Amino acid sequence: MIVALDAMGGDFAPVETVKGAVLALDEIKSLEIILVGDEKLIKEELKKYSYDKKRIKIEHTTEFIKMKEESSPAMAVRKKKKASMNISLELVKEGKANASVSAGNTGALMSASLLKLKRIKGVLRPAITTIMPSKRGNIVLMDVGANANCKPEYLEQFAIMGSYYAKLFLKKDNPKIGLINIGEETGKGNELAVASYELLEKNKKINFVGNIEPRDIVDTDIDVAVTDGFTGNVILKTAEGVGSFITGILKDEIKKSFMAKLGAIFLKNVFKTLKSKMDSSEYGGAIFLGVDGISIKAHGNSNSTAIKNAIKVANFFAEANFIENLKENF
Amino acid sequence: MIVALDAMGGDFAPVETVKGAVLALDEIKSLEIILVGDEKLIKEELKKYSYDKKRIKIEHTTEFIKMKEESSPAMAVRKKKKASMNISLELVKEGKANASVSAGNTGALMSASLLKLKRIKGVLRPAITTIMPSKRGNIVLMDVGANANCKPEYLEQFAIMGSYYAKLFLKKDNPKIGLINIGEETGKGNELAVASYELLEKNKKINFVGNIEPRDIVDTDIDVAVTDGFTGNVILKTAEGVGSFITGILKDEIKKSFMAKLGAIFLKNVFKTLKSKMDSSEYGGAIFLGVDGISIKAHGNSNSTAIKNAIKVANFFAEANFIENLKENF
Repeated sequence: MIVALDAMGGDFAPVETVKGAVLALDEIKSLEIILVGDEKLIKEELKKYSYDKKRIKIEHTTEFIKMKEESSPAMAVRKKKKASMNISLELVKEGKANASVSAGNTGALMSASLLKLKRIKGVLRPAITTIMPSKRGNIVLMDVGANANCKPEYLEQFAIMGSYYAKLFLKKDNPKIGLINIGEETGKGNELAVASYELLEKNKKINFVGNIEPRDIVDTDIDVAVTDGFTGNVILKTAEGVGSFITGILKDEIKKSFMAKLGAIFLKNVFKTLKSKMDSSEYGGAIFLGVDGISIKAHGNSNSTAIKNAIKVANFFAEANFIENLKENF
Repeated sequence: MIVALDAMGGDFAPVETVKGAVLALDEIKSLEIILVGDEKLIKEELKKYSYDKKRIKIEHTTEFIKMKEESSPAMAVRKKKKASMNISLELVKEGKANASVSAGNTGALMSASLLKLKRIKGVLRPAITTIMPSKRGNIVLMDVGANANCKPEYLEQFAIMGSYYAKLFLKKDNPKIGLINIGEETGKGNELAVASYELLEKNKKINFVGNIEPRDIVDTDIDVAVTDGFTGNVILKTAEGVGSFITGILKDEIKKSFMAKLGAIFLKNVFKTLKSKMDSSEYGGAIFLGVDGISIKAHGNSNSTAIKNAIKVANFFAEANFIENLKENF
C-alpha cells in the first residue's frame, strides 16, 4: 500500500513526521510513503536516518496549513490550494496513494477531506471518530466535532458507519451501539436524543443496546457511542481537561516533598500503566467516516511513534478495502 | 434561620442526615432544624447524640422518594404527596422554614422544588448549578440537568442568575461569565451556542467574556460557565467518569505490587490533596436557581459532613436574603 503523509502537519512537523515515516517503513515491509511538503526540509530530516530509498517519495510543496490559522480552517483550505494537507488528499483521490495521514489542524483536515475526497454517495454527513479508553476495552465515540448541528438521521448513519468501523478495527463481531444520553431510560434527553433513539431502535442493520451516560463510557461493554458533534466534542475535551487536571495535581504535589518524590519512584510502573491506559495515541488517531477515501487524523502533538501508528492505521484500512466495503451499507 | 432537612433523602439516610443536622447545630448557634421524615427512625438516630433539643423539631411522615423510583421522578413527586422531600419544601413555601436541604433523587427534587416553590416571576426556566473544581479556584457550571432542551433566552437568564450566585457565594466582585462551546472563537458551536453568544454579548447586566472549551474548565479565570442542561450534565458526568477511571486504575495497580503499596504510603498526603481538590462536596451541594425559595441539593452519597455543609449553605443563602435579592434582576 501507498500512504501519503502530510509531512508539514502537526506541532512537531517535519521532524517527527519524517521520523515516523521511517519507523513505519521499518515495520511494514510492503509499505511505500509519499512525504508531502517542503522538499528541502524533508530531505534535511531524511538525512538522519537510513531507510529503503525506493519506498519513500517526496511530493514538493511549500504551502501548508498552520495549526492556528488566522482565517477559519475551512477558508485556509480553500485559499491555500497547494497546502501539503490538500495535496496529500488529492493523491488519494487521484489513486496515487491508498490513504492519507495528517497531524494538522483538525477543522482544516475535515474540510479538506470533504472537499477533496467528497462524501460517499448516500452519506448525509461524514463524522470524526475517536477511540476512548475504557476499563473493558476501548470504545469508538463519534461524532466528535465535524457536525455541531445534527439531525436524528445523521446519528443513525453514524451508528451504521461506526458499527462497521468497530467490526473491522476493534475486531468486534456484532458491535454494541449506544446513544450518548443524560439518563439510561428510554425517553430521556433532549429532542435530538429522543428522536435518534427511536430511529436507532428500529434500525435492523445495527445492534443498538440503548442509552449510555457519559459517566459510564469508562466502564461499559458498548463498542460504539454515537452523538452529535457538539456533545461528542464536549465529552472529548472534558475528558482531556479532567485527565490533565488530575495528573497535574499529582505532579505538583509530588514535587513538594522528599517523601512523596521517593514514593513516586516506587510507583513508577503504576504511573506508566496509568499513562498508557489514558493514552489512546497508540491507536494512531481518528478516521473521517463517510468521506470517499481514507483520511486519518493523527493528534496535533504526535511524536514519531504516534505518526508511525497513524500510518499503520492508514495501511490497515487500505488493505482491508475499507471504503468499498463501507459503501455497501449506503 | 430555620432549615428544613429531608431526613430520608440520600444513600445513607437517615443515619448520615440526622448526624449532619446535629453537626450543623454545633457549628451555627443561631440555627434551628426541622427534620422531615419517619419520627421513629429519626428519634432512634438522635438518641446517639447530645444536642440542644429546643433547636431540633421533627415533622413526621412515612412517605419518601426512593433514590431509584420505578416511575419517573416527576411522577413520584406527584404521587407521593407526603414524601419527606415535598414536605420539606412546603415548609419553606409556608414560611415555616427559610430553606430546604435534600440529598434525595435529583430529578425528583427539581420537580418538587418547581411544584412546591414555583418559579420566580420572570424566570423562564430554573436551572441546576454545580461547583466544578479548577486550578484557579472553583467555578459555577449551569444548567447541569434541569432543562435538556434550551433556548438562547434561557441561557441568558442562567448567566444573570449565575452571576448573582457567584457574586454572593464565591465572593467575586464582577463574576466573569463564559459560554460552554467547542471552540474559543466567536461564531463557533451549534445553533444554540451561536445564538446564545449574541444575547450574552449584548447583555449589560453581566460580564460576558466569551466561549470556554470544556477542556479549560479545570484551568480558567471564568467564574460561571453557562450551557444547556443536556451539555452541562454531559460535562458533569464525563468528569465524574474520568475521575473514577483514573483513581480506579491507581488503586488497582497499587494493589498489584509490594513496592507500589509502599510507595503509596509515602504518597498518602498527595492522594489526600488530590481527593480534596477533586471533591466539591465541601461546598455542600447545588442550589436550584430560579425557584421562589431556597432549595439545596446535597450529593446522593453525602456523609454527615456533606449534609452539614449543605445545611450551612442553606443557612448562608437564607441569611443573605438570596431570593429577594435575586428577584430584583427579573
